[in-house]
Amino acid sequence: MLYSKLFPKALRQAPKDADSANAKYLIQGGFIHQEMAGVYSWLPLGLQVLRKVENIIREEINALGAQELLMPALQPKDNWLATDRWDGLDILFKLNSKIGGEIALGATAEEIITPLAKAYTGSYQDFPFALYQIQNKYRDELRAKAGVLRGREFGMKDLYSFHLDLGCLEKYYEKIAKTYLNIFKRCGLKAVRTRATGGAFSKFSDEFQVITSAGEDNIYYCSKCKVYYNNELVRAGKCPECKTKLGKPERAIEVGNIFKLKTKFSDAFNFKYIDKNGKEKPVLMGCYGIGTTRLVGTIVEANHDDHGIIWPNEIAPYKMHLIALFGKDKKINQKIKSAALAVVASEAKQSCEVLYDDREDASAGEKFAVADLLGIPERVVISEKTLAKNSIEIKNRKSGKVTMKKL
Amino acid sequence: MLYSKLFPKALRQAPKDADSANAKYLIQGGFIHQEMAGVYSWLPLGLQVLRKVENIIREEINALGAQELLMPALQPKDNWLATDRWDGLDILFKLNSKIGGEIALGATAEEIITPLAKAYTGSYQDFPFALYQIQNKYRDELRAKAGVLRGREFGMKDLYSFHLDLGCLEKYYEKIAKTYLNIFKRCGLKAVRTRATGGAFSKFSDEFQVITSAGEDNIYYCSKCKVYYNNELVRAGKCPECKTKLGKPERAIEVGNIFKLKTKFSDAFNFKYIDKNGKEKPVLMGCYGIGTTRLVGTIVEANHDDHGIIWPNEIAPYKMHLIALFGKDKKINQKIKSAALAVVASEAKQSCEVLYDDREDASAGEKFAVADLLGIPERVVISEKTLAKNSIEIKNRKSGKVTMKKL
Repeated sequence: MLYSKLFPKALRQAPKDADSANAKYLIQGGFIHQEMAGVYSWLPLGLQVLRKVENIIREEINALGAQELLMPALQPKDNWLATDRWDGLDILFKLNSKIGGEIALGATAEEIITPLAKAYTGSYQDFPFALYQIQNKYRDELRAKAGVLRGREFGMKDLYSFHLDLGCLEKYYEKIAKTYLNIFKRCGLKAVRTRATGGAFSKFSDEFQVITSAGEDNIYYCSKCKVYYNNELVRAGKCPECKTKLGKPERAIEVGNIFKLKTKFSDAFNFKYIDKNGKEKPVLMGCYGIGTTRLVGTIVEANHDDHGIIWPNEIAPYKMHLIALFGKDKKINQKIKSAALAVVASEAKQSCEVLYDDREDASAGEKFAVADLLGIPERVVISEKTLAKNSIEIKNRKSGKVTMKKL
Repeated sequence: MLYSKLFPKALRQAPKDADSANAKYLIQGGFIHQEMAGVYSWLPLGLQVLRKVENIIREEINALGAQELLMPALQPKDNWLATDRWDGLDILFKLNSKIGGEIALGATAEEIITPLAKAYTGSYQDFPFALYQIQNKYRDELRAKAGVLRGREFGMKDLYSFHLDLGCLEKYYEKIAKTYLNIFKRCGLKAVRTRATGGAFSKFSDEFQVITSAGEDNIYYCSKCKVYYNNELVRAGKCPECKTKLGKPERAIEVGNIFKLKTKFSDAFNFKYIDKNGKEKPVLMGCYGIGTTRLVGTIVEANHDDHGIIWPNEIAPYKMHLIALFGKDKKINQKIKSAALAVVASEAKQSCEVLYDDREDASAGEKFAVADLLGIPERVVISEKTLAKNSIEIKNRKSGKVTMKKL
């Protein structure tokens, strides 16, 4: 990609009202554009990052045998009445339609997936199975804030599993917990599994929290249980399980959560299976979410410095940020151009994606500042100076280490 | 993919209320599931087809240098007031939010892309450029019908181009027209470019119509102009350009349309550029749409027989539908299984995607019926009979031609 053609260019100034590092750098870098409170457009660079995050999730979840589908955002009111969430979920967006009256705008998808799964199954032989989607969710949050961390329209991977018995559900739940840690690791994050309230049906649910000073949650580590607990579970500074006195809380951002729904939604939709003996039994469900756009925001919170973003390798929009530094000598400039294009071509052969800053009207300082802001892992410079040594200069964005490499 | 694991299995019966071939076969085959009028879930098989269609579009549009982004469905009311479409577009869904009052649910994206493009550009040097997205659109249609042909929530690729002058816009418009024909060809459709009304700003727009008896539009061919005209343009059976008497109309489905918006939306948002002489001039825009979910429906309308779908090669959910026919002899069944798995493994090496019907409790007739319904291009059978000849039987879904191939 030629930087001269990229839409849009990075902004010279950070937005003045940014309330978080992710808002500041994602907006200034031209990754996202705010349309209104909690609603963003994902610009070409940002969309590339988002897609990489989505594909990591897809790969890991597909490997478990779950199948991807895509449910609608427009959802029947009756389904939400069936679960008592039409009136019970205060962040639910509702709209009027010319046909059929009121419609819910999907805040989550249990109200669709449960009757959908029911429609195609019946015998115990159809179980277990798991379905997921990566789709935008809509929530009428009073306080949309912190860039893409808490939005009114946001991306989510939501996975649902269906089981005959609790043992099978619990086994799958643990499998997902392990897979989640791997997903976050590939995204360059160290997430910790954290116990949280389980609702009416389970003692605990689990959250995946990334410890960072920008976090909005407080979590506590119990050194005896070797388990993190969410703030909600902790009373008077004591571990809710072993009653050991807990230390100071750590600030963290939640990037995923998993629930054993058990029969909460299958009861609401009378979703049963016929067992080996011909008897009807309720289906057990689990649900497992990762906020995809929130994940991108969290990655920035956990991976930046004063100059900009430092993308982890696997989700960087490009692997190499190539900078050509032109001078006044046209002949030498021509050589610099040829060398730069040769690097692009050679990297393309190895499937390495290059963002090439080919601008002739931008100063070295401007180009370096943009490279630091955009946070691509490897910055490569070609200039009269490097060409004199028949070399390119490679700087690692994270370590700052500079090396020269022969052309 | 093992058919025994696929969610869901094809239904034994076609839905009774299907009003079109695409509704009938896509629902019966387990490609889509209706949630309410004009609102569908895309099930795993259907999503695979949809993604292939999207990727063909992406490849072709990327090749023109357009950049992909992703805009939100939640759109500010003020933007829609600026274009007089808050009250003027009767199919616009509106919803209330706790913060900021009313919000539009995106029926299209001119109201977002125009101010977005304006925010990042200014000089003539920033032009021309083009941006697109593949995103769901929401329209409060009174008569959602014909399966996925006319929905209330549907997928769309919408591309927007920005130019300094009319010549540049017209050149790009023609490039897109050519690219569109190529996209539809790759999707197994013969689409014809058809002149339609252009609105206030242009004499004509262009539609891309697939001629099929299931079509909801009427188009006319003028053999003198060598041009198709949409019904709306034709008065008293005469060509609107050369006045030649026209023949009978042909039924067709619209799969894409392109418009020279010129300054319609840039005027509404005061979107201007500074020319070489420092003077402000309005930006010229074009917009180019393809309904992605509608395209899948159209492909089924144009490619099916009495037994089911006949997917064109490039968008089939799988390339090969492998059927193992088991008998009563366990030893031979074991040989059949091994041979089938060897075929799957060997095809995987060539990146050929196989759907393998491994069921042991389904009859040959059932398996053949499912294969015809799902419409995968190549049906391959392994049975005691074919193994006796050390062969597999290959049947082409489209031609019906059967060949034997040595194992």
